[in-house]
Amino acid sequence: MKNLAFLLLTIILLQGCDLVEKKVDADPLPSWNDGPSKQAIVEFVTLTTNPDGKYFVPEEERIAVFDNDGTLWSEKPMYFPFEFAFDMVRLHVSEHPEWNEEQPFKGILERDNQAVFSSGEEGILDLLVETHTGMTNAAFKQMVDNWIDTARHDVTGWLYKDMVYKPMLELLDYFRTHQFRTFIVTGGPVTFLQPWSDEVYGIPTEQLIGSRFKLVYEYTDEGPVVFRAPAFEFLNDEGGKVESISYQIGKRPVAAFGNSDGDLAMLQYTSAGEGKRLMVYIHHTDGEREYAYDRESPVGRLDK
Amino acid sequence: MKNLAFLLLTIILLQGCDLVEKKVDADPLPSWNDGPSKQAIVEFVTLTTNPDGKYFVPEEERIAVFDNDGTLWSEKPMYFPFEFAFDMVRLHVSEHPEWNEEQPFKGILERDNQAVFSSGEEGILDLLVETHTGMTNAAFKQMVDNWIDTARHDVTGWLYKDMVYKPMLELLDYFRTHQFRTFIVTGGPVTFLQPWSDEVYGIPTEQLIGSRFKLVYEYTDEGPVVFRAPAFEFLNDEGGKVESISYQIGKRPVAAFGNSDGDLAMLQYTSAGEGKRLMVYIHHTDGEREYAYDRESPVGRLDK
Repeated sequence: MKNLAFLLLTIILLQGCDLVEKKVDADPLPSWNDGPSKQAIVEFVTLTTNPDGKYFVPEEERIAVFDNDGTLWSEKPMYFPFEFAFDMVRLHVSEHPEWNEEQPFKGILERDNQAVFSSGEEGILDLLVETHTGMTNAAFKQMVDNWIDTARHDVTGWLYKDMVYKPMLELLDYFRTHQFRTFIVTGGPVTFLQPWSDEVYGIPTEQLIGSRFKLVYEYTDEGPVVFRAPAFEFLNDEGGKVESISYQIGKRPVAAFGNSDGDLAMLQYTSAGEGKRLMVYIHHTDGEREYAYDRESPVGRLDK
Repeated sequence: MKNLAFLLLTIILLQGCDLVEKKVDADPLPSWNDGPSKQAIVEFVTLTTNPDGKYFVPEEERIAVFDNDGTLWSEKPMYFPFEFAFDMVRLHVSEHPEWNEEQPFKGILERDNQAVFSSGEEGILDLLVETHTGMTNAAFKQMVDNWIDTARHDVTGWLYKDMVYKPMLELLDYFRTHQFRTFIVTGGPVTFLQPWSDEVYGIPTEQLIGSRFKLVYEYTDEGPVVFRAPAFEFLNDEGGKVESISYQIGKRPVAAFGNSDGDLAMLQYTSAGEGKRLMVYIHHTDGEREYAYDRESPVGRLDK
């Protein structure tokens, strides 16, 4: 440690303020394999941030959008909002004895996933509405906060907040170091993601766009309250991602990252802008350290 | 000028880097009358940004929300999106001969405002849908851009982009200088405001929240396109402002500014948080230099 400190001090004395920049330039993406993908990313950032080059993008236009499930964090074996919903059913079954008899709740309690998913889209929507709504927004945030601190992934045993991809965290940092604003544009429910994003990704909640359950404001005896009404309002997937980018960001992104067919529209929309654009698909191929999947997967299907 | 430069240089030599801060502290809001309102604002910013004080608010929580019509820019004699709609009717009537016979279009063409507003809510909604939808989002942006550059206020003869309140521009700057993020939360259509906000307020489009017409993404022969469908989707007023803050900002603001009953919920929601909060109502009392109105006004009604 002392030797390193001495070496660093020597470099500082020799190079002064250049040190920080040289260190960043050295390798901004150390977890990435050297290859065409990494090269394309570094080239894109270098070209769009060079004020003398023809591909320069002014800071206010530097918008990079990222899918979440399967792009920034794992989506296997199930999307995390589903894992949360499963745990909430187990936690709150005493207040809902009927869940012992009805699918998909019965399947969850008996750890029979086949029964759960046999309940179809309607059953899954019912599950989400039952576990994500019917309380105040503040109470829901508290439920998610508690879950984040305690719930662990079935296979790895890690906390879910650690199930994020290190290369992608480096990428987020790399873009932000170059004055890009990084937005998450996810199919997951946005209020489920709000309690995580600052800590896990360094992304403030106002840079999250996602699916929505209906919120309803009411002035009650206890003051102003936002209730979570039992209705799904907007699915932020496929073309919906572009629509919500148009409302909430109001600019066409210059870089877009996804991993499934649900992200295709967002990448196409990004690519149709002028100048240099970067579109990246994360393809899960490492079955040993993570999961390998694409066309045949029920979650994060990558086919088109 | 030379004397001033000499004086400034002397101060710099004497005080070094303190100069900038001292200048800002001198009077951050020169257009504001000295009085309890200005005092409350300065006290709020001073207390919430003092890291040693009990009211300190960390940077990530420094969210200030502003209504637009009547708070940041004028809303008299009519909301600007209506002025735009009126002008679009005049501009495009040759493509819509039926407008010569139907209200509220006929009234607009004959400059008969009473006929226009007699068409009621349904007529006004029809007017907005006819003039704000039915094209691509990009084409609409171009229409608004053109209008911003040329259209002038009936009474003052100024460009609409100059019809903003100087004291409020100072306020936006003052908050941002102290690391607050400034959001507009408006009842106006958000895509109408997007082309202005950067230039007029220094607020990036991703910090705008407003009402919405339905957008629809489609992949066409000419590539990916966002269409403006002829349907009003969400009215961002009253409780709706709190609901959209909950989705899009994901944090409770610590400061809120409005001027009408439509902003009350947003101010109440802001006030219900812990610690120091600032809620400001702009009351239009200067009939000579602007307009004086409150309870009886059809726009920007301030009663409750």
